[in-house]
Amino acid sequence: MQNSSPLERPPEYHIVVRPKDFIRSLSLLSERSVSQGSIHGEPSETHLPDPIILPPKESRITKTVVTGTRDVLSAKYESLDYDVCENKVLLEEVRTSTKDFRARKLVSRWFIFLLIGIVTAMVAVIVDISIDKLAIIKYGIIKDALDKCVTEDCLFEPYLIWMGLNMGFVLIGSFMVAFIEPVAAGSGIPQVKCYLNGVKIPRLVRFKTLFVKAAGVVCTVVGGLTGGKEGPMIHAGSVIAAGISQGKSTSIRTDFRVFQYFREDHEKRDFVSGGAAAGVAAAFGAPIGGVLFSLEEGSSFWNQSLTWRIFFASSVSVFSLNLMLSIYNGVPGQLTFYGLLNFGHFDTLNYELFELILYMIMGAIGGVLGSFFIHVNYKLIVFRMRYIRVRWLKVVEACLVAAVTATVGMIMVYLVNDCRPLGTDPTEHPIQMYCGDGEYNAVAALWLQNPEASVKALFHDEPGSQSAQTLIVFTLSYLALSIWTYGISVSAGIFIPCLLAGAGWGRLTGKLLGHIFPDASWIDPGKYALVGAAAQLGGVVRMTISLTIILIEATGNINFGLPLMITLMTAKWVGDYFTEAFYDLHIQLQGVPLLPWEPPAMSIELNALQVMNYPVLAFAPIESLRTIVQALSSETYNGFPIVDATTNHPLSKAKDGLPTIGKLRGLILRSQLIVLVQHRAYVETGYSNEGSHLPLAEFRNSYPRYCEIKDIYIPEEEMDYTVDLRPYMNPSPYTVSDTTSLPRIFRLFRALGLRHLVVTTDTNEVVGMLTRKDIARYRDKAHGSIGVDELYWSDKL
Amino acid sequence: MQNSSPLERPPEYHIVVRPKDFIRSLSLLSERSVSQGSIHGEPSETHLPDPIILPPKESRITKTVVTGTRDVLSAKYESLDYDVCENKVLLEEVRTSTKDFRARKLVSRWFIFLLIGIVTAMVAVIVDISIDKLAIIKYGIIKDALDKCVTEDCLFEPYLIWMGLNMGFVLIGSFMVAFIEPVAAGSGIPQVKCYLNGVKIPRLVRFKTLFVKAAGVVCTVVGGLTGGKEGPMIHAGSVIAAGISQGKSTSIRTDFRVFQYFREDHEKRDFVSGGAAAGVAAAFGAPIGGVLFSLEEGSSFWNQSLTWRIFFASSVSVFSLNLMLSIYNGVPGQLTFYGLLNFGHFDTLNYELFELILYMIMGAIGGVLGSFFIHVNYKLIVFRMRYIRVRWLKVVEACLVAAVTATVGMIMVYLVNDCRPLGTDPTEHPIQMYCGDGEYNAVAALWLQNPEASVKALFHDEPGSQSAQTLIVFTLSYLALSIWTYGISVSAGIFIPCLLAGAGWGRLTGKLLGHIFPDASWIDPGKYALVGAAAQLGGVVRMTISLTIILIEATGNINFGLPLMITLMTAKWVGDYFTEAFYDLHIQLQGVPLLPWEPPAMSIELNALQVMNYPVLAFAPIESLRTIVQALSSETYNGFPIVDATTNHPLSKAKDGLPTIGKLRGLILRSQLIVLVQHRAYVETGYSNEGSHLPLAEFRNSYPRYCEIKDIYIPEEEMDYTVDLRPYMNPSPYTVSDTTSLPRIFRLFRALGLRHLVVTTDTNEVVGMLTRKDIARYRDKAHGSIGVDELYWSDKL
Repeated sequence: MQNSSPLERPPEYHIVVRPKDFIRSLSLLSERSVSQGSIHGEPSETHLPDPIILPPKESRITKTVVTGTRDVLSAKYESLDYDVCENKVLLEEVRTSTKDFRARKLVSRWFIFLLIGIVTAMVAVIVDISIDKLAIIKYGIIKDALDKCVTEDCLFEPYLIWMGLNMGFVLIGSFMVAFIEPVAAGSGIPQVKCYLNGVKIPRLVRFKTLFVKAAGVVCTVVGGLTGGKEGPMIHAGSVIAAGISQGKSTSIRTDFRVFQYFREDHEKRDFVSGGAAAGVAAAFGAPIGGVLFSLEEGSSFWNQSLTWRIFFASSVSVFSLNLMLSIYNGVPGQLTFYGLLNFGHFDTLNYELFELILYMIMGAIGGVLGSFFIHVNYKLIVFRMRYIRVRWLKVVEACLVAAVTATVGMIMVYLVNDCRPLGTDPTEHPIQMYCGDGEYNAVAALWLQNPEASVKALFHDEPGSQSAQTLIVFTLSYLALSIWTYGISVSAGIFIPCLLAGAGWGRLTGKLLGHIFPDASWIDPGKYALVGAAAQLGGVVRMTISLTIILIEATGNINFGLPLMITLMTAKWVGDYFTEAFYDLHIQLQGVPLLPWEPPAMSIELNALQVMNYPVLAFAPIESLRTIVQALSSETYNGFPIVDATTNHPLSKAKDGLPTIGKLRGLILRSQLIVLVQHRAYVETGYSNEGSHLPLAEFRNSYPRYCEIKDIYIPEEEMDYTVDLRPYMNPSPYTVSDTTSLPRIFRLFRALGLRHLVVTTDTNEVVGMLTRKDIARYRDKAHGSIGVDELYWSDKL
Repeated sequence: MQNSSPLERPPEYHIVVRPKDFIRSLSLLSERSVSQGSIHGEPSETHLPDPIILPPKESRITKTVVTGTRDVLSAKYESLDYDVCENKVLLEEVRTSTKDFRARKLVSRWFIFLLIGIVTAMVAVIVDISIDKLAIIKYGIIKDALDKCVTEDCLFEPYLIWMGLNMGFVLIGSFMVAFIEPVAAGSGIPQVKCYLNGVKIPRLVRFKTLFVKAAGVVCTVVGGLTGGKEGPMIHAGSVIAAGISQGKSTSIRTDFRVFQYFREDHEKRDFVSGGAAAGVAAAFGAPIGGVLFSLEEGSSFWNQSLTWRIFFASSVSVFSLNLMLSIYNGVPGQLTFYGLLNFGHFDTLNYELFELILYMIMGAIGGVLGSFFIHVNYKLIVFRMRYIRVRWLKVVEACLVAAVTATVGMIMVYLVNDCRPLGTDPTEHPIQMYCGDGEYNAVAALWLQNPEASVKALFHDEPGSQSAQTLIVFTLSYLALSIWTYGISVSAGIFIPCLLAGAGWGRLTGKLLGHIFPDASWIDPGKYALVGAAAQLGGVVRMTISLTIILIEATGNINFGLPLMITLMTAKWVGDYFTEAFYDLHIQLQGVPLLPWEPPAMSIELNALQVMNYPVLAFAPIESLRTIVQALSSETYNGFPIVDATTNHPLSKAKDGLPTIGKLRGLILRSQLIVLVQHRAYVETGYSNEGSHLPLAEFRNSYPRYCEIKDIYIPEEEMDYTVDLRPYMNPSPYTVSDTTSLPRIFRLFRALGLRHLVVTTDTNEVVGMLTRKDIARYRDKAHGSIGVDELYWSDKL
């Protein structure tokens, strides 16, 4: 008995429908529908669906994955579950909870959002100050060397210093990312987006990841790479939120024994939304933008009180950052430091009606350039997936990028001799190079400062601060470098490189217009730089409402909202014509089963029978421990229907020995079963453990990293004990009938944040299970063709 | 046969479960659950719910309604249905729709949102200019009379003129509201909120309502009543959106035959969201606030592309308003007219950290004053419901309020002699009264201008522009008048009166603080007026995120967001302790079954069996016309399950003749049946109308006002024909099992915007129906007591 496989046990104990049999039973089900379509026994033709013969499910699983494919989903991702399991133990807890407890929970919730705001701002400040201090030292050294060598003709020396400093910082940063925590690479926005969408990304919200991210982004920026610190702040905020709200950390192995009642997917996700928003707020000084980022990327169900708390966290974050930076800058209380990046004060941002056309054209250019960016970056990433697979090679590539960046900068500083008079507001490290006294080199100014300062310079410098040649060369080289940079093994955001490249060609557009219409008062190169920056960024990330509002808040000018909106809208439309959005492409490359906003248009033709997962592995309400342990060991399912083992499928009687499927009684999760087995919540068969349920606290304490079934020791004599699953199962899981269309299933999943959906027959018997994976693999055909694509699955991705 | 009641027909034709029988069957159902809880036939105690004996449903319907009760829901409201009926005819349409059609639909959608923005702005501009022109004339006349009579001692004359003008305008406005369209009374925000929540408010979005609203609000404001034009703009935007998107108007009896494919609840609601947002945007120059208003008040399911379109409409609205007003003001293209109400330019809005405490205290004061406002206003409304019921009496009351308002103003102008020097920026109609030359009467300035100008004056006037005495008397009298005004039969919003009263006491607070700390640089009476205005408004309307953002946008200063947020948060918390929010109270008084954000906390103890509506009236898939007509005539249900008439309830066999309930096959709506009957989509019994389905276009053309069944003539010989309902029914409606808890049902309803939810047994047989009304009648017990209140229903409300 001990070693018997699940399939050998008597059918009433453990119910499995095998694909081959199942297809037969399905066609029978369809026949049933046909014959029941009429009344009074009169023969009538039916309007119900035709009989369906399903292909075996295996056909959609592929063993071979072409590197860089975007049509295969990875089987490794698990979903988060936002549905509350209203089982008996929860009911007991709710019944006995006092008014005090509820009040405490409410206050804790607000308190956590307050903490999230403050701590996110603190991390942002630490990152900002570190970069600031280190950059001053770095650029100071380079400037001294340059100033010295221009006269002494030893320019190779500052070049080597520049390259060495870049490579040194990048070496540290990329080593941490490659060897300590690879999930900290990049901006983290795609991963946070997946998490908020309901996909579990391993190690995404760990303390270790936060540390590598924060330290890594300092190295990236100081190392001179074309990356920003803003995207990583969003990831950092999410980690902070997850950490604080759970009151424990796996990385530092500590359980603070606070906030235990928030230890579930649903609550945790709410806090992470707040953390991401606080991150956006700190990065851009954009509290409203933060809220809308969380909503745009994450929420499916709009909840007023949650949104209010998210807004609170964002506002606190901006306020704290402001306060801390004002103290650091020696003007405590002078709250004018609105975010890590802000676009500086625009005195006037007026526009004429006809300029909207210009903005649309610029938006279109941004869409094209953005698509170009994405396409080349994609090719590079595929190249990396093929050839740069070992860790040290990744570190070498990062260092190479650092060296090339320094080289490009040096060559441009050396060759492009764009001299400008030192005005009242010079750059922080004005470099004279071959310019006359009282002048500085405009190219060196763009390269030898943090990219945020360069963005501001392009927005606010006097007209004529840079020559057209400078702008062209700078934009092109910066664009090329940033395409290369994103995807190497460092923590870096994409916002700043896009803004900077866009500001470059935007300012150039302004210059050009000024040349064509020399008398026009509406031409302000800074304004066009802003529009260009928006167009380029919009063309790459394709965010809509949240990006508009982030930009509005970063400029501090609400009245320039419509132009920004029109620019972003055009950029998105044009960009979408050519490629996927940047983040979505990265998500597809990882094979993450992300659910889009809407079901595929033509999926109305598909129904639950065709989409669902089968065979189903189900348990009886009172199940033997052996069955459970064997099922958990041999299968990877995370949810199991509980079925009534005493009923038989009506068809099984009529037809030769088809396996039975029971009536649905509830749903239980793998994690619950693990906790039950772990805590020995079983009794000798025939006895009852009525009245001594495992309390909910035990389930919460094990969240979110449950142990493996193989790591639990169970004495052989206990293997025949039984577990009463009824107090723990969800007694009324959401179900759909076998004829439900995919759009209806999709909406149910999306709106309620489900992880499992049980498919039942006309007699309430379980025929299949639906999970995110089953739904996410349907996608609209590309480029407006009518129809639905069915993606492959793989466990190789 | 013709006159037989539905109940007399053979059971396989027309299935009804009567309450008394049903209760018996329910207890049997529960027994079933008990006996099936074990496996292997061994006796085991169950964890499934105990048997439930339901009270007859009638017990929750009351015939007596106490005037002013808030614990009775009106039975007259119908719900909107956001679920798409995926029936066979829709499937055919989707299958045959071309790429072109889809593109056209997409473009139309954007185009409609564009139109909504422009037209809403146009209406706002017309209202604004009308008020402006008329007010100039009115105040000019009064000023002349005052100036003349101060010296000639005939002050009775200007008083009579003032009173006469007020009463004249208000007479027109209140006459229109009372006699032409009563739903245009008030601000319309509660009604729009209900509509967005999913409740059909009769005549809310008709063209006639828009006309009365727009003309009415002009009369109200010019008539000097304490009401604003901002709230009504939100209602106006909603009507415009509904009108444009449907391409037809009942009021002017025109069908433009455009946009037919948007004629369904779901699409219409999306457009109305956009219209409400455009209204907010036009009123306050707050496009982001508009979007968030729509989300906060309406949305349940956040949809990215919809939100983006709403934002587009809002932005277009602000832009168009700006452009039109710039043309009106003779500076075309100078886009500085951001909304009907804006708070003017605050040069500095800085704050010290400790001021946040002050803002919290002011928020608390706002909460208390707001609750006072709501409480007294509620008492007045109950009084009106009792005694002011006939229309002419309503008009008389409105005129009385107008007369009293003029009287109060006159008395204050006469008695309070607060003289201020005519500065560089005097009020538009400076009145000297008993002041010296070169001075003007500060009280007269506040009374003899539009309230928007007074709000701005309190925000921006030099410190010391009004005496403390003036502010106290003005605030108190304005507060008293506005409490009286809201609820009379005129179109008027509540924002301006609240802002003005709040600005009054806020400025007073600033004055007081200036007195206590004479040297403090942080005290700016204007800033405190702003905080007071926010506190007062927040204490009354209790909106959170959208109000914060509206205020941020109206001040044009993002960095004062946190103080405003903290003020509003405190005002809401303190206010919620005392009374319901203003709009919610009005909604409760109307007995509207609004669904809140979250299910009642303790409702987890309730399940579908206890909540659902029964008996159920169901049809067979192919049903006789007579049955359908009789059912529609005798019952008011709006949704009917289609059940399989050939199966019998298993219990009915075991037990003596219990009525059968069939297996669920689909759901059909009353409106669909009406259209089917109207278009004679029936055939002689035994024949089939296969292949000649009534196209979806016919259903759309009849939307939204279907005729009554009694108005359709059906020849007696056709009454025995049959209708094949299968092509039209929704073949897989959302269902829940009879044991599903109320919170799960609630979330399903709220997230998917359902109108009907079918309750099925363990064998997929229909036992009950759930509608919004069944769910909305459960409410948390007041003041934090633990438990659920069950509200009464009435058709008298």
